[in-house]
Parts: sequence; structure tokens; C-alpha cells
Amino acid sequence: MRVGIIGLGLIGGSMAIDLKRKGFADEIVGVESEPVNASAAEKIGLVDRVVGFDECIRQCDLIMLAVPVGAAVRLLPQVLDAFDVPDGENRVVVDVCSTKEHLARSVKYHPRRRQYVATHPMAGTEYSGPWAAMPGLFDGHACIICDTEESDPKAVRTVESLYATLNMRTIYMNSASHDVHTAYVSHISHVTSFALALTVLDKEKDEKHIFDLASGGFSSTVRLAKSSSDMWTPILSQNRDNVLHVMDTYIEKMQAFRKAIEEGDEDAVRGLIEEANKIRRIIR
Amino acid sequence: MRVGIIGLGLIGGSMAIDLKRKGFADEIVGVESEPVNASAAEKIGLVDRVVGFDECIRQCDLIMLAVPVGAAVRLLPQVLDAFDVPDGENRVVVDVCSTKEHLARSVKYHPRRRQYVATHPMAGTEYSGPWAAMPGLFDGHACIICDTEESDPKAVRTVESLYATLNMRTIYMNSASHDVHTAYVSHISHVTSFALALTVLDKEKDEKHIFDLASGGFSSTVRLAKSSSDMWTPILSQNRDNVLHVMDTYIEKMQAFRKAIEEGDEDAVRGLIEEANKIRRIIR
Repeated sequence: MRVGIIGLGLIGGSMAIDLKRKGFADEIVGVESEPVNASAAEKIGLVDRVVGFDECIRQCDLIMLAVPVGAAVRLLPQVLDAFDVPDGENRVVVDVCSTKEHLARSVKYHPRRRQYVATHPMAGTEYSGPWAAMPGLFDGHACIICDTEESDPKAVRTVESLYATLNMRTIYMNSASHDVHTAYVSHISHVTSFALALTVLDKEKDEKHIFDLASGGFSSTVRLAKSSSDMWTPILSQNRDNVLHVMDTYIEKMQAFRKAIEEGDEDAVRGLIEEANKIRRIIR
Repeated sequence: MRVGIIGLGLIGGSMAIDLKRKGFADEIVGVESEPVNASAAEKIGLVDRVVGFDECIRQCDLIMLAVPVGAAVRLLPQVLDAFDVPDGENRVVVDVCSTKEHLARSVKYHPRRRQYVATHPMAGTEYSGPWAAMPGLFDGHACIICDTEESDPKAVRTVESLYATLNMRTIYMNSASHDVHTAYVSHISHVTSFALALTVLDKEKDEKHIFDLASGGFSSTVRLAKSSSDMWTPILSQNRDNVLHVMDTYIEKMQAFRKAIEEGDEDAVRGLIEEANKIRRIIR
């Protein structure tokens, strides 16, 4: 199969490595709008060829949109439009975006909607660009596949086989439910990490102190604050309502902590910590 | 040298392993008030002998207080009292607590104050108890030594040589400064992690599958929420004013994020993320 990957960053690049290495794709064709990243992706050897958008869609059996969600909303209808050719119904387009409902809505009534499969492979690092791509990035992680009833079962099977190749666990839900869940287990962690970085950078003007004193605990909590604004601005914007709702709950919990500490109520502080400790059951 | 370690948890136990292994101590004597932990520490072989508090102080050249800060405030004066014997001035007591000012104040006018050295080795994991002890825990991390002008230079040198054995970088500051800086780079990360765990656990009550989706990013941000309430309740209580001040800044940053997201102001969201990204320069 010839696979076209649009967007050769961390996710697209890591997909390219493993889909070729594990034999899912005979050839990987890449599209990358940023010239420096395009040259790097070719030089690193992530893809067999870098081509233009139209050429990629014309030539490939499976198109993967691995761009930030703002760009995906623009590009997905263009890919489906381009499938309006005699052999278009044998092609599949799959996206890997972290928010799903907005994207789903954008092609809901597209005549080629059934050639599209909405997915979210839940793996990544805080780094971005083709330089960040790595083999095995997806191995053992969960991949959410959304709204399968809106897609051609054959297209769904192709995409399932792609994720099986990457050794991902597949989970099924509709896109609205996806966006609620990811607000809780992914988007809020990024916001809390950004806020933590802002707090420390604001208060601790002496960067050497941050560097010297940062323990492993601080580094792991603030790690996601390195995440790219190109990726996260549109996620927070497109999942606005869910993210705001979770942020409100989060701020309430902070206020409860603040009150217990301010009042010197050690029993209440202990109670909150012990409640939080229940996360041990769940996250190893 | 015979080293007595009071409190055989993660920190005390890991100290015991490396001080013996690296030849700093000829013998390690342990004190542990929790019977199960005491048996475990002996069985694991963390210490050569478990003895009572008085016996430990009588027999050891260097006493390390590796108990939660609430207990340390109670025990430190008792250790210094026990040094009131003919050879008492050749002994050293060192603590490893995460807050320093309260403890410093508790022995400021003690006649044996100069035999005490206040330190904070900044290493740890989210686990606790003798089972969590491990070799190499401190290796390469920073250790803050506070208020050295209040201690006998000979005692300071002994303690410096102890931390050199553990391959720690030593940093010097007074205890008030210590408490401000650790509020920023350590205590607040624990509070944000606890609040994150509480937020998501709250949601889990009506959404059983939410944790199927937890990615590596979520796990790393919430990791510190596993930290023990025995350790963290007194830290947050003793460093109350600094912690509240940092929490207020943190809540302001969250509110700024919330406002930008609510207003759909993508430029403001991007600006906040890019500002937060500056942490990349400091934390690798």
C-alpha cells in the first residue's frame, strides 16, 4: 500500500517510520508545508519522497492527516473533494487530531464522508518536528476511533489494521464523548503544566535557582509546558467548552486546598491528599 | 563512623544503603517507630541494627533525622538535649526536611545548636516506606545546606563530606530563602498534582472508563499525587505563607488561561503557551 502522510512532525514522522519498518506501507509519501521540516524529513529518511498536496492525494491509497487540528479542519474537506474521481472510493483518509467533534462536524454532510475515519492515537512527547519522530512511539498505547458508523466498514478495517501494526489498543466512542474524555485526561494536564511554568517563571526571576533546585518531581509536572503552541492553541480553542468545564472543577479543587491550608486545617489537608492518593489504584 | 538514622523510609533507607555501600559509615544503626517498617528495614538489610531512640543517640557520631517535618520539630531538640554529655560536642545531627524555617526557629536558642546542620537533599520518588529505598537515589541531585553560620564549621564539613559521598551538588542559603524557593519549585507542583488527581477522580465517579485513556503526559503530570499525606500535610502546613502566595499566583495564571480560552482569544492563548514554553531553556 502507498501511504501519504500530510504533516511530517512528531506524529506523522513516527507513523512514517513504523508503517514502513513493519511493512504496512510499501512506500511512504510525505507532504510538509514548512520547507525546513520538509528537507529535514527527507534527509533523516522519514519518507521515501516529499511531494505536493495534490500529487500525494492522487497517488496514495491511504492519506493520513497529521497536522494541527486547525489545519486539519481546512484540509480534510479538500482531501475528500479530491476523492471525487473514479477510484476515489477505494481510498481512505484518516486524521490523528486530539479534538474530534469540530472536525467531525466539518465533513458531516460531505458526499465522501464514508471514506474518512476519525482517530486519535494517544501517544506523544513534549517535542515536535521531524527531529522528534521516533520508532515505537505508539507501541502499547491507546488509540480512539470515533464515529465508526459514519465510515465505510472497509475503510474502518484498513485503519484498524494500521493501528494493529503499530501495536495500539483501539477504543471506540463518538467524537463528542472523545472530547469530554480527553479534556480530563490530556487537555487539563497541559493547561496545569502551562500555568505551573508561568507561575515559576513569573515568581522566580533567578533562573539559576529554578535550574538548581528543580527536582525530578517538578520536572515531570512541568514537562508538558514545553508543548508547542501550534498544536495546543487550536486544541484548547476547539475543545473550549469541555476544557472550561474541567478547568472550573480544577480551580474549585485548588480553592479547597487553599482554604484548608490557609485555615491551618491539617485534617482537611490530609483528607484532600488521601483522596488524591486514590490515583495510585489507577496510574502505576 | 557510626551513623544513626531516625526514620527508615524512602529517604532514610536510601541514605542507609549508600552511606554503607560507599564506605562513609562503618555501621548504620536505625530507629523506626512503626513496627512493620522496622522489621522490613531489618529484613531488607537497610541497617545493621534497629535500636531505640536513646540508644541510637548515645552510640552514634552522626544522627540523621529522616522523619516527616512535624516529627522532626519534636525530635530535633531531644537529640540536641541528649548531646549534653562530655563527648556531645563531637556529635552532629542533620535533618533532611523539605521545610526549614520552622525547624530552624525551634532550636535557634538551643545551647547545642551548633551541633545541628540543616539540609534538604532534593531527591525522592512518589513512593514511601523502607520498601521504596533504593541505591543511587541522591546521585547528581542538589542538596541545600541552610544557615551554615549557625553551625560548628567542623559539623558542616562532616555533613558536606556525607553529601559528597552521595554525589550531590551542595547549594547554600538561609532557611527563609529555602522555604520561598522550594514553595516555587517543589511544593506547588505537589499541590497542582493533587488537585489534578482530585479533578479526574471526581469525573471517574460517573465515567468508569476514563483512565483507559490516560496517556504518558497525564501520568507524568499526576505522578506526584501519589505522594504520602504523612509527609506532605506538615510541609504544606509549615510552609503555609509561601505556599499560599505561590498558589495565588498559580490560580491567577489559570484564570488568565481560562479567560483567554473562554473569549476565544487564540492570540492570547498562544501568547501564554509561548511564555510557558520558556521553561524549555531551563528544564531539559
